[in-house]
Amino acid sequence: MKHLFSLFALFTFGFTQAQTVNSPSGKIALTFTLSSTGQPTYAVNYKAKTVVTTSNLGIKLKDKPGLDANFEIQSSKNSTFNESWNPVLGEQASIVNHYNELVVSLVQKGTNIKLNLVFRAFDEGVALRYDFPKQKELNYFIISDELTEFNLNENNKVFWLPGDFDSNEYEYNETQFSEIDNSKINMNNGIGVKSIPGKYTIQTPLMMKSPSGLYVNIFEAAVINYPVMHLKADVTNYKLKSELVPNAIGDKAYLQTPCVTPWRTIMISDDARDIVGSKMILNLNEPSKIEDTSWIKPMKYVGIWWEMHVGNSTWDYAGSQNATNFGTELKKSVGHGATTENTKRYIDFAAKHGFDGVLVEGWNEGWEDWSGNWKEEVFDFVTPYPDFDIAGISAYAKAKNVKMIMHHETSGSVANYERRLDRAFENMVKYNYPAVKTGYVGKIIPRGEMHDGQTMVNHFAHVVKRAADYKLMVNSHESSHPTGLGRTYPNYVAAEAARGNEFNAWSIGNPPMHETILPFTRQLGGPMDYTPGIFEIKMSYYDKNKTEQVHTTLAKQLALYVTMYSPIQMAADLPENYEKYSDAFQFIKDVAVDWDETKYLEAEPGDYLTVARKTKGKQSWFLGAITDENARKTQIKLDFLTKGKKYKATIYEDAKGADWKNNPKAYKIRSIEVSNASKIQLNLAPGGGTAISFEPIQ
Amino acid sequence: MKHLFSLFALFTFGFTQAQTVNSPSGKIALTFTLSSTGQPTYAVNYKAKTVVTTSNLGIKLKDKPGLDANFEIQSSKNSTFNESWNPVLGEQASIVNHYNELVVSLVQKGTNIKLNLVFRAFDEGVALRYDFPKQKELNYFIISDELTEFNLNENNKVFWLPGDFDSNEYEYNETQFSEIDNSKINMNNGIGVKSIPGKYTIQTPLMMKSPSGLYVNIFEAAVINYPVMHLKADVTNYKLKSELVPNAIGDKAYLQTPCVTPWRTIMISDDARDIVGSKMILNLNEPSKIEDTSWIKPMKYVGIWWEMHVGNSTWDYAGSQNATNFGTELKKSVGHGATTENTKRYIDFAAKHGFDGVLVEGWNEGWEDWSGNWKEEVFDFVTPYPDFDIAGISAYAKAKNVKMIMHHETSGSVANYERRLDRAFENMVKYNYPAVKTGYVGKIIPRGEMHDGQTMVNHFAHVVKRAADYKLMVNSHESSHPTGLGRTYPNYVAAEAARGNEFNAWSIGNPPMHETILPFTRQLGGPMDYTPGIFEIKMSYYDKNKTEQVHTTLAKQLALYVTMYSPIQMAADLPENYEKYSDAFQFIKDVAVDWDETKYLEAEPGDYLTVARKTKGKQSWFLGAITDENARKTQIKLDFLTKGKKYKATIYEDAKGADWKNNPKAYKIRSIEVSNASKIQLNLAPGGGTAISFEPIQ
Repeated sequence: MKHLFSLFALFTFGFTQAQTVNSPSGKIALTFTLSSTGQPTYAVNYKAKTVVTTSNLGIKLKDKPGLDANFEIQSSKNSTFNESWNPVLGEQASIVNHYNELVVSLVQKGTNIKLNLVFRAFDEGVALRYDFPKQKELNYFIISDELTEFNLNENNKVFWLPGDFDSNEYEYNETQFSEIDNSKINMNNGIGVKSIPGKYTIQTPLMMKSPSGLYVNIFEAAVINYPVMHLKADVTNYKLKSELVPNAIGDKAYLQTPCVTPWRTIMISDDARDIVGSKMILNLNEPSKIEDTSWIKPMKYVGIWWEMHVGNSTWDYAGSQNATNFGTELKKSVGHGATTENTKRYIDFAAKHGFDGVLVEGWNEGWEDWSGNWKEEVFDFVTPYPDFDIAGISAYAKAKNVKMIMHHETSGSVANYERRLDRAFENMVKYNYPAVKTGYVGKIIPRGEMHDGQTMVNHFAHVVKRAADYKLMVNSHESSHPTGLGRTYPNYVAAEAARGNEFNAWSIGNPPMHETILPFTRQLGGPMDYTPGIFEIKMSYYDKNKTEQVHTTLAKQLALYVTMYSPIQMAADLPENYEKYSDAFQFIKDVAVDWDETKYLEAEPGDYLTVARKTKGKQSWFLGAITDENARKTQIKLDFLTKGKKYKATIYEDAKGADWKNNPKAYKIRSIEVSNASKIQLNLAPGGGTAISFEPIQ
Repeated sequence: MKHLFSLFALFTFGFTQAQTVNSPSGKIALTFTLSSTGQPTYAVNYKAKTVVTTSNLGIKLKDKPGLDANFEIQSSKNSTFNESWNPVLGEQASIVNHYNELVVSLVQKGTNIKLNLVFRAFDEGVALRYDFPKQKELNYFIISDELTEFNLNENNKVFWLPGDFDSNEYEYNETQFSEIDNSKINMNNGIGVKSIPGKYTIQTPLMMKSPSGLYVNIFEAAVINYPVMHLKADVTNYKLKSELVPNAIGDKAYLQTPCVTPWRTIMISDDARDIVGSKMILNLNEPSKIEDTSWIKPMKYVGIWWEMHVGNSTWDYAGSQNATNFGTELKKSVGHGATTENTKRYIDFAAKHGFDGVLVEGWNEGWEDWSGNWKEEVFDFVTPYPDFDIAGISAYAKAKNVKMIMHHETSGSVANYERRLDRAFENMVKYNYPAVKTGYVGKIIPRGEMHDGQTMVNHFAHVVKRAADYKLMVNSHESSHPTGLGRTYPNYVAAEAARGNEFNAWSIGNPPMHETILPFTRQLGGPMDYTPGIFEIKMSYYDKNKTEQVHTTLAKQLALYVTMYSPIQMAADLPENYEKYSDAFQFIKDVAVDWDETKYLEAEPGDYLTVARKTKGKQSWFLGAITDENARKTQIKLDFLTKGKKYKATIYEDAKGADWKNNPKAYKIRSIEVSNASKIQLNLAPGGGTAISFEPIQ
């Protein structure tokens, strides 16, 4: 195979400098070539089909000559890497990291600047990065533009989000590549701060499907000390070019050699399961820098949170503000949520039902006037409201063996959060909170910075590293998209960084297909705190005038605990709602959040996903199957179960006539005995799902 | 008098809305008038002479109507205030704060926005500020421009600095107002980062002298949560207009009602001593917010600092860098200054000669590559170099009863400093350092911010407040100019914020008149850490090829301990140099740094200054007299001494033939017995001075 691709490369580019690296199986090949102007280029083939045609590489520097021409090859080196490693928390106990690598060392005529291009070919995709060695010709430099191209061949189907430098909380648009156009999006979507530079800028991870059925995904890995890469689409020629997020004065990245850029990744497969199950993004990150990880624990949690979203209570003490009036007039008080009494009720509920943790939002001073005004000093992260007895609650939780999850909403004022971070974390240690949910709702301070810029990328990493010093876990919301940093800092247990379940409570919400796409996009970079488990699906339950709802059946909410991987997983609905549907709630109580094995059984982005996972350290399995707005029937082979073992399968499924819109709460539960030779027929309602627990029978 | 001025106002402006406030003595009067367009204006008279002609007031808001027209007077109120208060450290034990106040409450037609203008008339000047009451018509707002004018009548003599938003470390230009022009300044002056917006932008404090001999000073007080005000000069019409420092995106200030702007101050007198001795700036600040101030102590200190400036050692461990090669090629190693051994030598010296403290710069990792590259993560402020045994040094100093002064150079990376500040201060407490010298050499990070912007003003205040939480004193270098914050936070003991003595070591230096101007400008806002006491005046002493020198005689360096008030005062030269001139050094050992009384005996900005001060809690007095490049003879009456007491006056003066340029080290010391009826003849050499200690004879 290798020989074949090399020939192909020579034929296509006509340059003797062509260098090729093949994936271990030979399915994927990346070919590097220097153009006639000395610009580095690459192309990618999948099973002899060109998926990425000759695409330019290069970096523009501020106040220095561009690194996009006049290069000569100094040397090149091929190597192979094969290891397996064990994530602290994860979808599987062991991850194989197997790739072939090509490093091309370039030197620029005239400047004598040295630049290495590093290419890795995995079986499910390729990755490339710029590597700037330490050299007297280049010490400090400022990147003004990155010229990386991804030139596609065809008018793919694309699941795209507008390239908003401040938000990734959009619904996916499913269109042909040629139809990408931000101006056609309904922007009345509940997102507060929007910074979209143009009609054709879109986000990564970008999931596509070619007319011939190839799945192609463009993303990035190990975004460290560098801005997030967005993509500018040329909708006529099916080309994409990197568009880095600028800082307040238009610069992209401040670097000092030796240094590397993040990896630019292209996954390709004719089987969508290869992409959704890929660990390539994690593999492209550095191993854990935390030596003792014994304090990093998975968590299932409940919290004082959804009750604010549905309008039952408020974040602020005065009860003047709730999630349904962002930016509008103050509403009549409905009462503060984070009271000592209410918190103890949640702790009791968690203890009774075996949850690890309780999140409480709105516990601290600042919420009366926190949002929408670019205010720098909102929260101090240590001062509770008078009705939140933090010491008493801490002691109460400890007595009940429940962990408290702290909430640090920054309102985007990162300057304020950073200067108070040590005291905030000391306060957490003092009151025995092992995890923090951070929030970044609002325009960033330092003013002029955006959520996806280098400054913020560094901030999110800083919080994670500092948290590790205090042995605290971090679940960040409204952060830039994770790109595998959780491998290096396993205390970075989850992030939101996409449109979560909350939008269903007070906006146009998330269409039924939403959760079938996230595992192909957002979740490639790390676990998402999606907050599933909503049983009272229609907001009219709380207020007859409301028309909002979660775009789901109840059974699908259960299935999400399996399809949406996260080691910190919320049961988001109200305790009283769970008590009303205690039979369905049993699945949430039973389901694991950390796994030894994961099998992606069926996958089609935008349509459906079926996943089976084996509990970490146990014999039980769980299966989740979800569909989009279309009903779906499928038969699943249970050959993943251990041969020779019997299991009690408890099936939580949509009842007959169930339908996300008109009959979302119709579910049924049945139990059957199965083995690894069994098959199960799944019947998913429109917007529905199925959740199954498999308990070994002794 | 009051009646007279009111009539005058009516005559001049022709508006019945004219409102006047007179100073307690009636010497100064400020008249407020609404213009025909409803714009607020004011004018200031001194002894019936108009010093500031009708000048506009107003504020421009971003995305809102301007607050510069269509106002109506809702009400106005006159009041009188008279108190005295005791500074924790100061030039005098008690300060009188006596003024008359006029508050004019305005409302804007159309918007109904309410704005108060607050005017205070002291005997040495006036102050005005904008006061935005809490109101539904104005909550959050962004100031895009401040329109305050200072329209002068005459072509004054002006001591001006270019309006650099990043530096106040310039020499003074002494020209006529009509000759203000930044393009004519020699910019090869050793200042690394310069941000000058135009030819006619100049800084405050701005000291002027009118053709008729009136001294006029324009400055500001209580700059809190607001950018520094620079001034745009109209050199044809002798007008000045406020020019606020913008942030990264061009905004000036983010405010929320209720709030106030800083005070804009105009001091006027026909006696320069009224201005140099004024406590108006302090009086315009809030009283101390620190309850227990017992830990705030004056300090005389030595340190490992000047030896780097003269090239004897380096800040960095590797010895690759020193002050003489900022921005140029690395110099051959001369050896790290901040070693344990060298520090102990300074501690020994401090203990032997009765100094309170020892400053050590270059003690911590980062100096190898700290400057000039806008690098964010340079220092962590806690990690000493391997040859600096911080624990051992701390114990050694404690045993010798010497206090260590920590150094935190930020290289302008405020983001980095703020996120590490708590740990840095904890480290100081751990090792028993009661004071920190901060530094901000370099372009500011967050990038796009400047030293004088609102963000940085807030940062400097934040450091002072946080330091107070740890009971630490702050001496900031390269900060924005102090505007009296030391009254509110007495732990803000000193700042540099002007061109200090260090520039003499490696640049064109400070001309002999420099120190005769600083007390009229920079020092009005708070003590300056000028670092006097250089005995080896010519850099050729260290390196025959060097031509730099301190523009001073040795005797003048002694006089500066009295003329340049600071409660934290360095003896900047090397211990070995002091030991060579131990008779002159005796004055530095004897002189106090905290005072019960201060008498400005003679003052002429740019020419000379003679000051006498009485030691806090003691009967001894000290006198300092300095001159510019001209020799000066003067006779001083000692009537400030206590009547009936005899004193031994020890006079440290320029010897015959002394001269800053050709014979700077020629001094003589003599002792005489004096009383309050005595007179002393002072003979100051060109660039010279006289220092006298008066010890009561038992």
